[in-house]
Amino acid sequence: MPDTQRRAPTIAQIAREVGVSVPTVSKVLNGRADVAAATRDRVERALERHSYRRRRSGIPPAGTGLIDLVFHRLGSTWSLEIIRGVEDAAAAARTSVILSELGGEHRPPRTWLETTLARPPLGVLLVASQLTDAQQRRLVSRSVPFVVIDTDGEPPADVPTVGSDNWNGGLAATRHLVELGHRRIAAVSGPSDMLCSRARIDGYRSALESAGIPYAPALVRAGNFYVEAGYDAAHQLLRHHDRPTAIFAGSDMQAIGVVRAAHDLGFRVPGGLSVVGYDDLPIARWTTPALTTVRQPLTEMAALATRMLLGLAAGAPPDVSRVNLATELVVRESTAPPP
Amino acid sequence: MPDTQRRAPTIAQIAREVGVSVPTVSKVLNGRADVAAATRDRVERALERHSYRRRRSGIPPAGTGLIDLVFHRLGSTWSLEIIRGVEDAAAAARTSVILSELGGEHRPPRTWLETTLARPPLGVLLVASQLTDAQQRRLVSRSVPFVVIDTDGEPPADVPTVGSDNWNGGLAATRHLVELGHRRIAAVSGPSDMLCSRARIDGYRSALESAGIPYAPALVRAGNFYVEAGYDAAHQLLRHHDRPTAIFAGSDMQAIGVVRAAHDLGFRVPGGLSVVGYDDLPIARWTTPALTTVRQPLTEMAALATRMLLGLAAGAPPDVSRVNLATELVVRESTAPPP
Repeated sequence: MPDTQRRAPTIAQIAREVGVSVPTVSKVLNGRADVAAATRDRVERALERHSYRRRRSGIPPAGTGLIDLVFHRLGSTWSLEIIRGVEDAAAAARTSVILSELGGEHRPPRTWLETTLARPPLGVLLVASQLTDAQQRRLVSRSVPFVVIDTDGEPPADVPTVGSDNWNGGLAATRHLVELGHRRIAAVSGPSDMLCSRARIDGYRSALESAGIPYAPALVRAGNFYVEAGYDAAHQLLRHHDRPTAIFAGSDMQAIGVVRAAHDLGFRVPGGLSVVGYDDLPIARWTTPALTTVRQPLTEMAALATRMLLGLAAGAPPDVSRVNLATELVVRESTAPPP
Repeated sequence: MPDTQRRAPTIAQIAREVGVSVPTVSKVLNGRADVAAATRDRVERALERHSYRRRRSGIPPAGTGLIDLVFHRLGSTWSLEIIRGVEDAAAAARTSVILSELGGEHRPPRTWLETTLARPPLGVLLVASQLTDAQQRRLVSRSVPFVVIDTDGEPPADVPTVGSDNWNGGLAATRHLVELGHRRIAAVSGPSDMLCSRARIDGYRSALESAGIPYAPALVRAGNFYVEAGYDAAHQLLRHHDRPTAIFAGSDMQAIGVVRAAHDLGFRVPGGLSVVGYDDLPIARWTTPALTTVRQPLTEMAALATRMLLGLAAGAPPDVSRVNLATELVVRESTAPPP
């Protein structure tokens, strides 16, 4: 008999099975901190075993629903584009958005989960961050759905994610440089533990190889998507005796750092060095030179993830739970044939 | 006998005085929408007349407190600096932050107030936005304190505000240009209905006048703090037969637009045109040329406003309720003597 047809257990049954009191099960369900970790763990496993779903009292009154938007770190305009997309989609559903940053030392992930479960929200949007298995289990046992935007790992198949086609983006950026005649093309990656970053570098590598250009590990530098990383990487690359004539910078912020380093070392962009960014943040069109970049539709990704989350909260699983939106090369002024 | 020594009225007394039922007064206190506007208005006036304060059940349990952070419009990295400051100060107090944008058509101010009062939060932070008198009265009658960051108007004396010294900032920026030898100095303002913007332009004017340079209205253009406005204003100013040799751009974003317009029209910065920004956003040090700008401590302003708000929510009015933090000129590469 499939799980969904079994009669749902009551809190009393769960309590009896685990050997704890009914108030203890209630406390676990309500995310209270005053339950011993071992006890909570046993209760949560029982809730999970029985696919216990807390009865939701339907859709909350308009305007009182809350969702949690959780960033690993709030950085650069990239975060703001995500926030905008979430705000728009949430406002359209008369839902408010609680914004959290896990990176700050004040709010370690454990505290965050306690706080969130004590609320609890309609659902949680995680941006480029990943829950532990135990954290996921706790959200699931409390019937709090979550959606990951631009995942930094490989979440289980049943976790909905919204990203963009990073591999294609890396491929398109590099192909553009190859077509301009570049052969020594460097790349600055994002953090190596982020899936999006690895996919972009794989796309870069594929474009090189399909053009018969050998992949040179010395031309790939690890960054973190921030300006400083692009600046430092370009400084190292451009002082090398066999320096590149083009750099795929991995993010617009890193591209701004690369352009600045080139300027400081006396290279003109694009005359002496071509640079391709990634993201197409609003600033990309206004820098001098304006950046050739790969547009990823951050606000659309965020809005779609929000709508998926609100659907899940209302009991409607999304038709497709792994979505990657298309990326697109935008050619501006920072790329030209090699000198 | 002063108000504070009178015995606090009960809800029943308020109901009797207004001639409505107790549940109706409760509904008004709880921000419910199902009360006729005229009735609500009468109840609120009575609550205000008696300085009725809803008994708060002390400080909420750690981690369950919420504050509302309300932007008129989420734009540029400027917003992100404010968000960071609020997040840090709120996280330190284990308080979560609900982020709203009033500019979006989906969330007109009226709806926002209903939603907020139905919650209600510990307090409200308003960024460069202003409540109507009626809205202020409703928050006060519900004992929801609010603090304004960088006010765009002149709120009543009892509304705490945190800003920065905009007049001094405008003065310092313009003085720097005067000291470099510039005489034809233009300015791009922010929105004319924002107090911070008017103060910066007044500082600009004062610096000119104290240097014996007549103020020329034709050299002052109205902007909106965004890149495009700086670009358009510089385009107009630089094609004029009697063009300026320096532009005080009013914001870093407008400065980036001015630099781009200068580049498009064939002027080098700072060789042919000096540019001063405002804000000192993280990007300002990375543009080419890096921006000379006026630093305003946005994250500190936001953190201070948050602490003031949390203090008010806990019943501790701030020592000083109108605070302007100091601004500071940061000289980088975008300014030089006139050509």
